[in-house]
Amino acid sequence: MTASRIECGVLGATGMVGQQLVRRLDGHPWFRVTWLCASERSAGRAYGDVPWLLASPMPDAVRALRIDSPSSTRAPQLVFSALDAAAAVTLEPAYAAAGHVVVSNTRTHRLDADVPLVVPEVNADHLALIRRQREVRGWRGAIVTNPNCSTVFLAMVLAALRPFGVRRVIVTTLQALSGAGYPGVPAWDGLGNVIPFIDGEEEKIESETVKILGSLEDARIVPHNAAVSAQATRVAVLDGHTESIAIEFDRRPAIDAIATALREFCGRPQHLGLPSAPAAPVLVLDEPNRPQPRLDVDRANGMAVCVGRVRPCPVLHVKLVALGHNTIRGAAGAAILNAELLAADGWLDEGGARWSS
Amino acid sequence: MTASRIECGVLGATGMVGQQLVRRLDGHPWFRVTWLCASERSAGRAYGDVPWLLASPMPDAVRALRIDSPSSTRAPQLVFSALDAAAAVTLEPAYAAAGHVVVSNTRTHRLDADVPLVVPEVNADHLALIRRQREVRGWRGAIVTNPNCSTVFLAMVLAALRPFGVRRVIVTTLQALSGAGYPGVPAWDGLGNVIPFIDGEEEKIESETVKILGSLEDARIVPHNAAVSAQATRVAVLDGHTESIAIEFDRRPAIDAIATALREFCGRPQHLGLPSAPAAPVLVLDEPNRPQPRLDVDRANGMAVCVGRVRPCPVLHVKLVALGHNTIRGAAGAAILNAELLAADGWLDEGGARWSS
Amino acid sequence: MTASRIECGVLGATGMVGQQLVRRLDGHPWFRVTWLCASERSAGRAYGDVPWLLASPMPDAVRALRIDSPSSTRAPQLVFSALDAAAAVTLEPAYAAAGHVVVSNTRTHRLDADVPLVVPEVNADHLALIRRQREVRGWRGAIVTNPNCSTVFLAMVLAALRPFGVRRVIVTTLQALSGAGYPGVPAWDGLGNVIPFIDGEEEKIESETVKILGSLEDARIVPHNAAVSAQATRVAVLDGHTESIAIEFDRRPAIDAIATALREFCGRPQHLGLPSAPAAPVLVLDEPNRPQPRLDVDRANGMAVCVGRVRPCPVLHVKLVALGHNTIRGAAGAAILNAELLAADGWLDEGGARWSS
Amino acid sequence: MTASRIECGVLGATGMVGQQLVRRLDGHPWFRVTWLCASERSAGRAYGDVPWLLASPMPDAVRALRIDSPSSTRAPQLVFSALDAAAAVTLEPAYAAAGHVVVSNTRTHRLDADVPLVVPEVNADHLALIRRQREVRGWRGAIVTNPNCSTVFLAMVLAALRPFGVRRVIVTTLQALSGAGYPGVPAWDGLGNVIPFIDGEEEKIESETVKILGSLEDARIVPHNAAVSAQATRVAVLDGHTESIAIEFDRRPAIDAIATALREFCGRPQHLGLPSAPAAPVLVLDEPNRPQPRLDVDRANGMAVCVGRVRPCPVLHVKLVALGHNTIRGAAGAAILNAELLAADGWLDEGGARWSS
Repeated sequence: MTASRIECGVLGATGMVGQQLVRRLDGHPWFRVTWLCASERSAGRAYGDVPWLLASPMPDAVRALRIDSPSSTRAPQLVFSALDAAAAVTLEPAYAAAGHVVVSNTRTHRLDADVPLVVPEVNADHLALIRRQREVRGWRGAIVTNPNCSTVFLAMVLAALRPFGVRRVIVTTLQALSGAGYPGVPAWDGLGNVIPFIDGEEEKIESETVKILGSLEDARIVPHNAAVSAQATRVAVLDGHTESIAIEFDRRPAIDAIATALREFCGRPQHLGLPSAPAAPVLVLDEPNRPQPRLDVDRANGMAVCVGRVRPCPVLHVKLVALGHNTIRGAAGAAILNAELLAADGWLDEGGARWSS
Repeated sequence: MTASRIECGVLGATGMVGQQLVRRLDGHPWFRVTWLCASERSAGRAYGDVPWLLASPMPDAVRALRIDSPSSTRAPQLVFSALDAAAAVTLEPAYAAAGHVVVSNTRTHRLDADVPLVVPEVNADHLALIRRQREVRGWRGAIVTNPNCSTVFLAMVLAALRPFGVRRVIVTTLQALSGAGYPGVPAWDGLGNVIPFIDGEEEKIESETVKILGSLEDARIVPHNAAVSAQATRVAVLDGHTESIAIEFDRRPAIDAIATALREFCGRPQHLGLPSAPAAPVLVLDEPNRPQPRLDVDRANGMAVCVGRVRPCPVLHVKLVALGHNTIRGAAGAAILNAELLAADGWLDEGGARWSS
Repeated sequence: MTASRIECGVLGATGMVGQQLVRRLDGHPWFRVTWLCASERSAGRAYGDVPWLLASPMPDAVRALRIDSPSSTRAPQLVFSALDAAAAVTLEPAYAAAGHVVVSNTRTHRLDADVPLVVPEVNADHLALIRRQREVRGWRGAIVTNPNCSTVFLAMVLAALRPFGVRRVIVTTLQALSGAGYPGVPAWDGLGNVIPFIDGEEEKIESETVKILGSLEDARIVPHNAAVSAQATRVAVLDGHTESIAIEFDRRPAIDAIATALREFCGRPQHLGLPSAPAAPVLVLDEPNRPQPRLDVDRANGMAVCVGRVRPCPVLHVKLVALGHNTIRGAAGAAILNAELLAADGWLDEGGARWSS
Repeated sequence: MTASRIECGVLGATGMVGQQLVRRLDGHPWFRVTWLCASERSAGRAYGDVPWLLASPMPDAVRALRIDSPSSTRAPQLVFSALDAAAAVTLEPAYAAAGHVVVSNTRTHRLDADVPLVVPEVNADHLALIRRQREVRGWRGAIVTNPNCSTVFLAMVLAALRPFGVRRVIVTTLQALSGAGYPGVPAWDGLGNVIPFIDGEEEKIESETVKILGSLEDARIVPHNAAVSAQATRVAVLDGHTESIAIEFDRRPAIDAIATALREFCGRPQHLGLPSAPAAPVLVLDEPNRPQPRLDVDRANGMAVCVGRVRPCPVLHVKLVALGHNTIRGAAGAAILNAELLAADGWLDEGGARWSS
């Protein structure tokens, strides 16, 4: 089995999300990291010589990998991208044009009309956009994206509640420090503080959510017509974005029905049994003071959204608190789950492990 | 001038809010602390021997004061109450019956129909309820309350915007650790965490706000008909509650008009020039990443509400972020401002400094 | 194998260390928790109904266990004690007298002349004191203790360096919040602060260390003649005590020899292959800015002491920084390793799983 | 009086220490900031447009000042330097050569044989080195430095105890985040962590301390012969370095004598009544759990060193805990006190406010 694992690479392998990708791909049953790439500044160094930011040690299998430069042609077909947004503008299309399937966590191409923005439990069917992407752009490869971290958790909650007719959503996020990357927020600003602004975050939440919940019609996405309003804040938490969410539906649902829909929500990753798929994508916690990032962020290996305090809202219909692991379900784990879906759906079949550009 | 300062006392003088009261009354131009009271456990000790929780040192003037017991009859007419809610059930009425004006920060009597719940800039006229209170209860004294900390800041923002016709409000609070009193939240729970539940807090915000914004008609309060929905969270901040607020008005106002109304808001404390009154009760900050508790909580000596990020809301009409100092403007300073208003309006005239029960 | 696991119980099962014991005994190859005991206040409740303090979920196997009261006679032979010090004064001897082997993390009996104070890598031979204990006290059971958390890490470092002749030691500890138990340090005190005092901690470090390093002569411990001076501080860390240590030896050793001795240090747990024994009890980290509690505290499953910055000291001979997990290697894991040693050395042979008082 | 205040400038005015200098010089009775300088990147902007890092607002008097570039010739005679170390290599000598008195907080020239490294209470007489500096270097101006932040507090404690004959000192520091400047330590590294390494810090403490305590003989400094050993750590504190100090003297002193010497310590700033001089440079706190940075760092306006836990050391003679405000007494306040001493001792007489290069 190991012998036939699909080779993959990581663009932007030295940042916070890049390292989470490397860590979570270690021992992955389907994928094997054989190529790491970072900016010219790091290129040429052994990966083991780069500062490692995570508490769990760097996997031994990648220590000796030499960091390649972005202009390299040695990448395998499957490439994860944790590039910064500016670098992704040209690099991701270049790799896609050269035949790579770029599974990107970067925001740059998420809202492009022909780029799938996918949460596998929610809109696995949007992968069909790849065909249009290849036609329009003449690419052999593709770009597939996962949403902004805060958006993933909101979209999963709303997707579970789609049967009730989501109309209006107000969300305030309390986002973890790891979401700002590394070095990210200075400790002088972050300790004992709340910063009520994260550049571009609210726009992403408001626009990405309706694309994800949108329907695929004639090879294009018709955005969901829900109105979403977001206020993003940064808090002194290491990992885990908390979201205070109020929702209005087509008509006021029973709270029990909401909780049940959240609990029973699942999608293609669960049906396909994808390796990274949590048994239940949404965990509903009954204790009144949960979810808490310190206690709940790692549930289901960081791949579940924890929801608590489901109750009526005196202004909209329902309010609740959601929590997700921003660098796992909101970034590295999201990209890997997308890649697993791509593999399961046959998008990586044309060569896979043996393929090279 | 010092000779004629009004003597005052503090019920519950050893807790977080009691200490803030003592600290802020030190050097007060109108009031002078001559009596401190705490539970039987502390009674008899010199105040200087009690653990002091604040960074600024204990005022020298109170170090030698002997802590009295709640059953004492030595209290001056004006008594601030920072009692816990259970103790206030019987003690506050007992003191009021004995002729004391109890200026309370405690939640117990806030929603009583004949007890004024006052933010002086917002509803100074509600003090007129004291007359009904005395008639109904046969008290010589009175109980006057200030709101829950989170409510004060919300009520001030909404009061500034009353001309636009406030209809619906959704607020998520990010509350400081000092709001839980002492010892309050264990460090094990509070460090690097968000706790999405504060017992009773959301109910207080939802119910107290409409009483404060209500109108006095026939010696009773008709609550404002706005709908308020609150989600309270505890974050790793020492002082300062941040609030993410979305508001719907009778009709969508211009953002500039909102900002101007907030900036120009003032009330009787400013007109009367009360000693603790901030020049401007609401400060509108233009920087995109403000207000922040670490940087802004002490503005205007902790008595202003700082507002930032005033902008359109895609769901309701306007969203913004507010910040207030929870143990000052939200507790000790609020009570002192109430007492100043009582003094200025003549409610303490019947004896004042010379009075004793 | 499961069928023959030795039954064990936990005294003080609801506190921070008691919960770590329960968590780490879950799935233990030799021991199986069948009995939980806490103060009368919790007795009678299901363990699953007690607030759980750890991030990893409560093991399913103990959820349904009914919490027994300290006066119960249903305990198995092997009983771990995480009692508070006052309760241990009478309870631990009572259990030992009744035939239980009490493996205690509590400080109460650590310095008793006939009670082994054991770090298995350092002084496994001190278990022989049990014979004297039984003779003197007439007990069928026994009390065996592990040291104070800070002491464990220091003792392991010094034991590794015993060949060089330890003469004088100065240590400053930077101790985690979890070391204070729960609720422990109020967040108001702990956040963004250093508290330079932990009651009794320095005395424990200074006295326990020399007992552990002492030699067993004629069934009594002759303390090591090293002089130890400790300054304890509490810092805003969740788990992991950091120690700044300076040491003087009989003569100045080469730094390389020190590092090698630390790296090669091992003891009976490694020779016996005890289940909780780390492969290397001391990990020497070469990076100049390590060990760090956030990154290194869980190495070797929390059972290793991480050492860094080994270098000459201009005043004594060598200085270095050590880090250990205070509730694992410094408490629950220490006790479990002691129990494993007791089992391996035959002290639990008289009935074991089938035994009951 | 205001009219005759001495004009001064700040080199490196946009960093953490530069801002503290600007803040503390606001309203200074002797000095008036008329010139601000920063790197070419900021030059030309109004100071009010630069991000302000401190909680107290930027002084109005400097908002409109245009930031000058380092190559400017418009600086007044008295120039404070908060440059980074690399920039100071050439800039500080250039300014001194051009006639400016550079009062520097930067490490670059502290150990130069002809540069005074001054803590005014400790070694005001070292200013005499200026004469040699001018002779040797042919400068009209001068460079005068204050020590590294951690060193100031240690040096003040040791200076108070010089009469007992200081022989050996071991210190472990627990340093605040603000000591790393801005952006400084990433929040991801700093939150809930201890970093046991600060580049160059230990060397500074060990070498600067003996220069400060040294004696001036024949226009050169003979370092004190005490041996100093330092371990520096970074902790999650905003402001305030805590130091755990153990000291050996010529012979073991009585603890009472030590405490008395600390309490009674004072020097030329107190005798001269310099504006920034604390009444008592060392405050001895009797409470067993003090000093704490959160509670004590601002005592005496941040200019005192707080000492607690003075007690015998089983290895050396005495141990104690010291605390100082690292960006005030350890940086900006230290430089300003040096400038006040220079002014009082006549080193700024040659032109002062009217002088310009």
